[in-house]
Amino acid sequence: MVKDRLERLSAALQENGIDHALFSSFVSLRYFTGYQATVELEPSPMTPLLGVFLWIRGEQPTLYLADMEPGDGIAGAISRESFSSYIIEKPMFAAQDLSAKLAAKLRALPRSKVAVEPEEIPAALLDALRSDCPQLEFCSFQDVLSTFRMVKDAEELETMRAALALCDLGQGIAKQQATAGRAEIEIFTALRQAMELREGGRVPIIADVVSGPRTALTGGPPTARKFESGELLIVDLVPRHFGYWGDSCNTFCAGEPAKEYKVAFDGLASVLSDAIATVRPGLRACDLDRQVRSGVAKLGGSYPHHTGHGLGISWHEEPRIVPYNDIPLEPNMIIALEPGMYFEGRWGMRLEYVLRVTESGADLLSKYRHEL
Amino acid sequence: MVKDRLERLSAALQENGIDHALFSSFVSLRYFTGYQATVELEPSPMTPLLGVFLWIRGEQPTLYLADMEPGDGIAGAISRESFSSYIIEKPMFAAQDLSAKLAAKLRALPRSKVAVEPEEIPAALLDALRSDCPQLEFCSFQDVLSTFRMVKDAEELETMRAALALCDLGQGIAKQQATAGRAEIEIFTALRQAMELREGGRVPIIADVVSGPRTALTGGPPTARKFESGELLIVDLVPRHFGYWGDSCNTFCAGEPAKEYKVAFDGLASVLSDAIATVRPGLRACDLDRQVRSGVAKLGGSYPHHTGHGLGISWHEEPRIVPYNDIPLEPNMIIALEPGMYFEGRWGMRLEYVLRVTESGADLLSKYRHEL
Repeated sequence: MVKDRLERLSAALQENGIDHALFSSFVSLRYFTGYQATVELEPSPMTPLLGVFLWIRGEQPTLYLADMEPGDGIAGAISRESFSSYIIEKPMFAAQDLSAKLAAKLRALPRSKVAVEPEEIPAALLDALRSDCPQLEFCSFQDVLSTFRMVKDAEELETMRAALALCDLGQGIAKQQATAGRAEIEIFTALRQAMELREGGRVPIIADVVSGPRTALTGGPPTARKFESGELLIVDLVPRHFGYWGDSCNTFCAGEPAKEYKVAFDGLASVLSDAIATVRPGLRACDLDRQVRSGVAKLGGSYPHHTGHGLGISWHEEPRIVPYNDIPLEPNMIIALEPGMYFEGRWGMRLEYVLRVTESGADLLSKYRHEL
Repeated sequence: MVKDRLERLSAALQENGIDHALFSSFVSLRYFTGYQATVELEPSPMTPLLGVFLWIRGEQPTLYLADMEPGDGIAGAISRESFSSYIIEKPMFAAQDLSAKLAAKLRALPRSKVAVEPEEIPAALLDALRSDCPQLEFCSFQDVLSTFRMVKDAEELETMRAALALCDLGQGIAKQQATAGRAEIEIFTALRQAMELREGGRVPIIADVVSGPRTALTGGPPTARKFESGELLIVDLVPRHFGYWGDSCNTFCAGEPAKEYKVAFDGLASVLSDAIATVRPGLRACDLDRQVRSGVAKLGGSYPHHTGHGLGISWHEEPRIVPYNDIPLEPNMIIALEPGMYFEGRWGMRLEYVLRVTESGADLLSKYRHEL
């Protein structure tokens, strides 16, 4: 599948009059080479970049990878070079080693254009390449890349199903754990533990776990706050499986929900299910946004955030389901829809499912079910 | 304490003939403003940077922070400005908004020099500022910053004690859990859960959890592999508490250790305790490295990695205890020492403690104790 992505890249570069590409975002590395960093990402003190992807027209694409990285998942179509990230014999020189290796390769090129991601490449590296290779013009390809991964291929869909299965598991544990007297952080650690045991390895996760009046804030990290009887709890779980993110959100109540909560919850669930029924190729993101937003308004609520977003190597990508966005849905886009309603200082709730756009409608990929 | 750091920054800039500073690494943001990102860091799909720190001589220092960030911990000495990170009314423009706001400020400056971190600032931002403010010269300050945080102040020491207490807790749980038949990932999730419950919130953590022949690799993430009777297990835990990292490593054996393991372990423990006894101000990092490395060699072992490293906002910083480094130790440096020995394809072990250099020696900050 990496092979198909590379062919599409070649065509997109050509269409934009660009000869070569040098990408440095972890998103592009994953997409175009298959490589996935093994740990939850932290900026490394050893090197400003873990890797760079170099695509020169007519040559085998190359991943330059920090030598401390095991390089799991690199596709067969990709050649691998390493640069020195940290050795004990001399001071840190990863950035210099990487730019020297790239320059050695790029200097040999004739006058040409190279696509880069200017918001993702450190100035030190781009400056060094500009200075060493004055015949090259580095052009931003970020606009093209921002919609490049919207439609998922079969390999991506399979990986995302596994990420979404982690969500299903986590939401199931959250449901069991969502009882009065339990701290937000207890609920969180229990569900993450279940995910990591199922995965047989670490699971990076972004999560909102907020209870009581904190639900009005739309989200936030789990704290020691105890979830009390009659309160609401929002659990939004975004775990990553081999480079792809799942997404999910449910709202729970400890004990018997107040009538106000029950009415809101049922209304929200039906707005979401109407939205899913509306999804089809050709529907514009902004029209889907308007439908959901006005549905929630009819319930007397509102939400300050997007109605939804694309999901993949990034946990928030195109097509963004927001008022300004006229991108039409296409088959095999994978989108999360997450209407909510929030009342300042009082309470909030949000319900989310992830679906795949099909030829004729939507295939619901989330398997857990909302139940207050 | 941020105030003292800002005064030292002012002096260091002056000494280097630089007028102002614009720092973008999360490490510098934490150090100079107190700001700590709330979640485990992932490159955000909303903005290439969460914040930028601007220090203009004679003015109040300012943190430009993405508006989605709550900005926990910002010191009183720092003025706060926000830039738009993601809104639903128009396409992503965080990078543009940030650079426009910075340029509006920087354009007003006379011809002067601005310190930056070229390996940490996105090319897009630096390019925009260069183009908007041609009177400014942007100079790298990375070399100065690399040793700027070596000596810790009282506030840092206090935060690091809390991070190290998480290590003590985690190593205690690891010891209880290190029994035959348990998977590496089970041991990991149990100890992290304990840390997060103690913390009352999420704890970012870097960890090696490797058992059996995997110990010969020096480290790696926890997997589903089961720790078996008679095998070794290396548990290296690096949790973060409010922006500062703890560090710790212990080696366990399931059941009765083979004599070879016991001898190696006792030898390694005594090399480590000799090293701690040697630590004092003025001792050069390379001399400490040589002593420990040759101590392990006398046991018939060796390790390919550093002997140790400074610890703080970064989990690996100066003073690095490595062969090339002639930095002398100073009071209130906090260093991790972690000698190990590894036998390819067979087994490995590593023992680590963290200490503070005092006026006359070392104060052991790690409270857990090594026991095979």
